[in-house]
Formats: sequence, structure tokens, C-alpha cells
Amino acid sequence: MSEAEAKIQESLQDRFDQIRELITQYHKAEELAEEEKKPFNPDYSKLQQKLEELHPADIADLLEALPLTDRLLLWQLVKSDRDGDILLEVSDAVRDTLIADMDDHEIIAAAKDMDADELADLAPEIPNDLLQGLMDSLDSQQRERVESALSYEEDQVGALMDFEIVSIRNDVTLEVVLRYLRRLKEFPSHTDKLFVVDKNALLKGILPIKRLLLNDPDKLVAEVMADDPVIFHPQENAADAAQAFERYDLISAPVVDDKGKLVGRLTIDEMVDLIREKTETERLNMAGLREEEDIFASVWHSVHNRWTWLAINLITAFIASRVIGLFDGTIEKLVALAALMPIVAGIGGNSGNQTITMIVRAMALDQITTANTFRLLGKELTVSFINGLVWGSVIGFVAYYLYDSWSLGIVMMLAMTLNLLLAALMGVIIPMAMVKFGRDPALGSSVMITAVTDSGGFFIFLGLATLFMTLGILPITG
Amino acid sequence: MSEAEAKIQESLQDRFDQIRELITQYHKAEELAEEEKKPFNPDYSKLQQKLEELHPADIADLLEALPLTDRLLLWQLVKSDRDGDILLEVSDAVRDTLIADMDDHEIIAAAKDMDADELADLAPEIPNDLLQGLMDSLDSQQRERVESALSYEEDQVGALMDFEIVSIRNDVTLEVVLRYLRRLKEFPSHTDKLFVVDKNALLKGILPIKRLLLNDPDKLVAEVMADDPVIFHPQENAADAAQAFERYDLISAPVVDDKGKLVGRLTIDEMVDLIREKTETERLNMAGLREEEDIFASVWHSVHNRWTWLAINLITAFIASRVIGLFDGTIEKLVALAALMPIVAGIGGNSGNQTITMIVRAMALDQITTANTFRLLGKELTVSFINGLVWGSVIGFVAYYLYDSWSLGIVMMLAMTLNLLLAALMGVIIPMAMVKFGRDPALGSSVMITAVTDSGGFFIFLGLATLFMTLGILPITG
Repeated sequence: MSEAEAKIQESLQDRFDQIRELITQYHKAEELAEEEKKPFNPDYSKLQQKLEELHPADIADLLEALPLTDRLLLWQLVKSDRDGDILLEVSDAVRDTLIADMDDHEIIAAAKDMDADELADLAPEIPNDLLQGLMDSLDSQQRERVESALSYEEDQVGALMDFEIVSIRNDVTLEVVLRYLRRLKEFPSHTDKLFVVDKNALLKGILPIKRLLLNDPDKLVAEVMADDPVIFHPQENAADAAQAFERYDLISAPVVDDKGKLVGRLTIDEMVDLIREKTETERLNMAGLREEEDIFASVWHSVHNRWTWLAINLITAFIASRVIGLFDGTIEKLVALAALMPIVAGIGGNSGNQTITMIVRAMALDQITTANTFRLLGKELTVSFINGLVWGSVIGFVAYYLYDSWSLGIVMMLAMTLNLLLAALMGVIIPMAMVKFGRDPALGSSVMITAVTDSGGFFIFLGLATLFMTLGILPITG
Repeated sequence: MSEAEAKIQESLQDRFDQIRELITQYHKAEELAEEEKKPFNPDYSKLQQKLEELHPADIADLLEALPLTDRLLLWQLVKSDRDGDILLEVSDAVRDTLIADMDDHEIIAAAKDMDADELADLAPEIPNDLLQGLMDSLDSQQRERVESALSYEEDQVGALMDFEIVSIRNDVTLEVVLRYLRRLKEFPSHTDKLFVVDKNALLKGILPIKRLLLNDPDKLVAEVMADDPVIFHPQENAADAAQAFERYDLISAPVVDDKGKLVGRLTIDEMVDLIREKTETERLNMAGLREEEDIFASVWHSVHNRWTWLAINLITAFIASRVIGLFDGTIEKLVALAALMPIVAGIGGNSGNQTITMIVRAMALDQITTANTFRLLGKELTVSFINGLVWGSVIGFVAYYLYDSWSLGIVMMLAMTLNLLLAALMGVIIPMAMVKFGRDPALGSSVMITAVTDSGGFFIFLGLATLFMTLGILPITG
């Protein structure tokens, strides 16, 4: 790491550390004052100054990394005109703790400067009666926009679009456009194109800023505009829009209604947040967490967040346990089976998770069609068959070596191969069935495949062992 | 879904389907010709025309979703001047299959029009002798850039930056800048700012296009430029840069060397790809896949890709099996233990994965400091303790009901609680230790925590049962 880089990287971390140090000092002074029973009149000016130097997104990060009492102390010290920006940056879980600490007056002040789409983003967390008052205080256009944004589902384009549109007519020259822009005091962020509309606000095309700059100012907008831009509709799925942004390298794009009227704009920053959030949610769900969790959330909140998946897991584990219970007579006769059975189940789970992850990913990328499903299934089964034979033989040989029984080794190898085939089959079927039933194929798929390979693995292994015993091939030993 | 939207969404899917249909027809015609022993002279013009209407990124998607023979058929039909763009869009695994199908002449033609950073991106997959010839054919500046990009690690800013910089001086007016831009024939994509440099190419500031458009053309660049932009260094970690892009909503940013000289540019599209790739890789690794896998990869390639993690899993499962083996005397005396033990291990694994996912995520967001580690550990232990008592009691009661032994129920509850505490402890320690040893905390963490909670769970449960038996509390039944 170069010096120059270290300096820059440190600076943010340094500033965070300095703030943490100030908080510690403050705590010590408070303790001391308490011991000596003196009044405690802290001077927060240093802390406040440090905070003022930080970008709202950085303050948001800092607040997320602090325990609740320290977080609320800093929150009180932040200049109130920055409240809104910070609230929009923090995670939902942390936002709750901050809003809970604000009085009505503060919430209204923070919300007042927000754009319609930001306000709609915040609305679910604002107490209901307060929200009503807030909506009443908006002008009619703004209120309409907030209501429009709230009328869409969280995963629809309409909920993510903003209304900061710079639109122009197509019958003016670029020179006129340049003069018009100069008269605007502000300019929405992420403006890489202007929207060309007719007098009824119907979208006619887009004028990339690039073309505005590169072309002769005397040319007409109609001559240089692009008339086949990538457009989106408010009802469209936001994840599809994010994929299109990524695919076509977009920075902003128009949103039009069914009649072709320009109603809003999507920008890359919202799409990046969406991509990040979606993968985060998937990861949390795969690990058995219902939602993102503030690391300093109360114990009760954490227990609640983890409850559901633990309960589901308990049920699947119980079923697996009952499957084993079916064979207690067999295990009693050969206790080595009890030691070996988790291996069969475990490898099956691992292999099944590999298959299901592949399939879920391919589905997300639209790579799976009815035509290639069987080919894919065939491939997965072949891969599992090879893995089963190879690893089953390895572990079968180990079993033979440990328990001095070649028939036990064969049971092990057969069970492993069959369980891996089951894992491949279910790894393809489960996500496809989820999609058929209109559900997210990633959600809970890991728990389901593990449940199948556990119960299935125990059944196959102990069932085979019982069969071999009945046939007199597997010796009954202590 | 609105009609208008459906039409647009369908159109791409429709076009893909039409192409698939054409391929099927071609296959049928080929079979027929073979049966009738006639020569087969296919007419690909329709297919070729359909392909021409598609964006390179869309063709890339289509190629990824096709089995190898069909993929290579389309690849041959694509106009050769689009080869390069498509190669840059497909996944690494698919890119290998395409390049393997090209002759030297085609590869050189595709690479010739590429920018230096794109060429560097492709270089590892080009045969070595060919690459040398290609490098020799470049002009010296271009060659230097490719060599520079190749000199950095894949995860460094230097490997991702491009060289398409529009730089200006600070002592000219905006009018001059506007005229200068108009003289440029092309303009790099994602240009939301111009870079202000002195005569030694030292970065002085940036001129956002926004300010160029909003301000009076008579003003000097020095008056309106921003002199404290977010900058990056080539040695810096690319993931950190991506986080900064997300945090500060950047579209492009300058890359400067240690002396402050402007050497390149980062753009949001590269960062989005990076974010997506990183989360993808993590997900694949968590599921036990070494790398992304072409869904139509050969069976052998797939087996190879999944080999490593299955082998690791086999070893951990074997260790768990040996732990059970230690207690075969105990299991022989009470076979119900064999049925119950996977429950203790399973819930421990689930709970441990919840903790480790939380911690890895908090670490990625820099939320963990030495000061709050113990507080976090304390919280995780408390959550686990509560979950252990609650779910342990539930399953303990079930065990009592099924096996009519209250002492077995108590062993179950105690073992569950202890294993969840172990899961919480290791869920915090494992990722921290990984970081201490300079490794990615996400890589293999799931396998490790499961290994600990399996072996640990079996040991705790069977150990407690043995202890209770020795003490005469747990009855020995068949």
C-alpha cells in the first residue's frame, strides 16, 4: 500500500477513531463527575465539529457501528438540517432506532426538504398520524408524487423512480437548450441525458448530454436526439430494470406510463443499492435470518429475527430423527451405522447445495428453458454419479478399514451414490417448483435441500444396511 | 403487468425464442438431409439477421444459455466486428469456450479495436505466443497501458481503470472548454466530469459537466471546478473503491499515482460489475463451488469445480463420525441417542451460520472494532442461550414423550443449549481469526462452523449422555 493511499484510507478511519475516542473521554468524565457527585456539564463542541466534517453517508456508517446509547448521543449532536440525508443513508433497522428518538417537530423538519421519492421511502417508518399531517403540508404536485410512489410495491419501478426530470422540446436548437440549462439554478444528480417530450408530455426521445456537447449548437434537438431509448414502466419489476441498467451501462433512463407519457426517471445509484440489497437479502435468508439485523439490536429483537428459520430447521431435523428411529433395531445390531450415517447425509447436503446454487443462478440469468432442462438434469445426475462413486469408494474403503467389514464399505458406497443422485434430482426440481408456484427460488432452498438429503440419506443408508442384514450379507457385530 | 410493458419485456425474450426456433429447424433439416443422404446446404441468413438486431450484451446472454454446439454455431455467424464486444460481456467460463473456437487471425481482429483496459481483461485467456504478437502490434502508448493494467492484481484499482480521459487546463474559460469538446469526435462513455490538470499532468481538480452547463461560459475553469474530488490510487483495493462509488454516488473518478499525477479513470459500470461478481463469488464459495460454472460445462469440468469442497466436507464429516465412534458403547446401551443426535448438531449448524453471517456482514461494513467485540460476543451468547433453552426444552419434551425418559429430555435440552453457545462463540471467533490471518472471512466460513457444530454437537450430546449413564440417572434401555 502506497503512502499516499494509506493517508487517504486512514483519514476516514482516523476520523471515526477520533470520534470514538471523544465519546470514551466523555463517558470517563461523566463517571468521574458521578463519583465526586459534581454536576456534569459536558462540552460537545469538539465532537460536533468532527461530525460536521463528515459526509452524511459516512455519519450513517458511524451511527450503524455504535451501540444504541452512543448512537443516540451522536444523533442529537448532528445539525438538524442534515438529519434527512442521514436517515436516507442508514439501514432500515438503524433508521427505526433513530426515528424513535426524534420528536414530531424534528421528523417534520427532516422530511420537509426531501424529494417525493425519498419521502415515500421514509413514509413506512413515520408514525401514521404524523405522516397524515406531513402529507397535508405538501403542495398538491408533491403530494401526488408521494402518493404515486407509495401506490407501487417496493419491488416495482414506480417505487424507485424519482421526479427530477429535465425535459425539452425537439423543435429548438442545441443553443437554446444550453441557454435554458444555464438558467436553471440546480440540476438533478445523475443527469446524463435530457428527456425530449411533446406538448402532451409524451416521450419523443432522449438527448444525451454527450451529443449536446459534441454537436454544433445550431442543430435542432430533433436532428441529434436518440429516438429509441431504453424505457421502463412503473409497474415493471425493479430487479429487471437493474439488470437492464447493468447490461446496457445506463446512468439514467425515462419511466413512461402506458400511454407513453413521461412520468419519472430511474438512476444508476438506486439500481446499485437495489443490486446490493437483493444479494444481501438472499444471503441473509440463506443463512436463516429473516431480515438485516442491526448488530446492536436488542437480544429480544435478534431472537425474534432468527426464530422462524430455527423452528423450520427443528422440524426438518425432527423428521430426519424419526427416519433414524425407524431403524433402531438395525442400529442396535450394528452400532457402527450410527457413526457412519452423518457422513452420507452431510456430503449429500453439500452436493445438493452446489446443484441448487447453480440452478438458481442460471434461472436468475434466464438461461434455463424447457428445451434444456432435461439436458441439465442429465448433466447434474452424471456429475453426482461420478462424485458418488469416487467419494463413496474412498469412504467405503475407510469404513472397511475401520470396521473390518467389506459389506459395510459397499453399503456406504451405494448409499453415498444414491444420496448424491437424490441431491442432484431435488437440486434441479426444488427451484423449478418454487418458480412454478410463483416464489423466489433462492428463499429457503438451502434448508429444503438439506432436509431432503438428511432424511433421504439416513433412509437410504439405514435401509440398505437393513436389507443387507436381512440377506445375511452384513454381519451383525457389537 | 401492463400491455405496453409486456410488449417490451417479451420482445427480447421473443427474439431469443425465434433464434432458438431457427436453430431447431436447422437441426431438423440437417437430420433429414442425413437420412436422405443428400448434401446439407443450410441458409443462415435469417439467423444472421436476427443476431444483428441484438445488443452485444444480449448476444452474450444468449450464448451463455446455449449448449456448446449451438453456441459455437451462433458464434460463427456473428459478424466478426462484434466479436470483441461480445467476448467482453460473456462470463469467463463461456469466454474460454468461444476463444478456443477462434483461429489466431480472428482473435487478433477482435482484440485490435479494444481499449487498453479491455485488452488487459482479455489477456489471460489469449494463448501466450499470440498475446506476444498482439502486444508487438500495438503502438507504444497503448502497449504501455496494457502492461500497466496487467501489472496490478485483479482486485486492485489499477487493473480496472480505463485510460479514456478528457483533461483540461484550469486557466481557460468554459467557452473554450465547450469549443474544445465540440472538436472531439468522440467522448468516452460515463463522462460526467472533466479532469483539470497542470502541464505536468498533476491533478488539480475536476469540472463536473453539470457545472460546465450551468455556469456562465465566460467564467474560468479555475473558478468553477471542484478542487477536492474523491480520488483513487492504482494500488488501492477495488472493492473499497466500489464501496466509495456507492457511498458517494459517483459515476466516474480520477485515479492518480503517488505523486498526484493523473493516470486513469474509474467508472460506475466497472464498479457495478465488481459488486455483482464479488457477491456472486461469495455465494458460489459458500455453496462449495470453486468458481462460476458454465451450465453447459463438460461433466469433467463440473466434477473438477466441485471436487475441493466435497473433499473438505468429507474430511469434516469423517471427523464428526469418529467423534460418534468414541461413544459407540453408550449408543449401544441406548439406541435412541443415535436418532436424537443429528437434531443437536443440525440446529447448532443453523444457529452458527446465522451468527457468522451477521459478523461477516458487519465486518464488511467496518462496524466491528476492538471496543465492541466483547459486547457483540456477549449479545450473541445471550441470544444463543435463550434459543437453546427454548428450543432445547421443546425438543427435550418431545424426547421425553417419545422415549418416556425425563432424563433423556434433560440431556437433550442441556446439549442443545451448550451446542448453541459453542456455535455463537465460534461464529464470532472464526471470521475474526480469518481476518487476522489475512483471509477473506466469508470463504469457507459456513463449512467451518458446520464442522465445529457437528463434531461439537455429537461430543456434547453423547458425552452428557455417557455422564448421566455413569451417574445412573439415564436408564439403559433397548
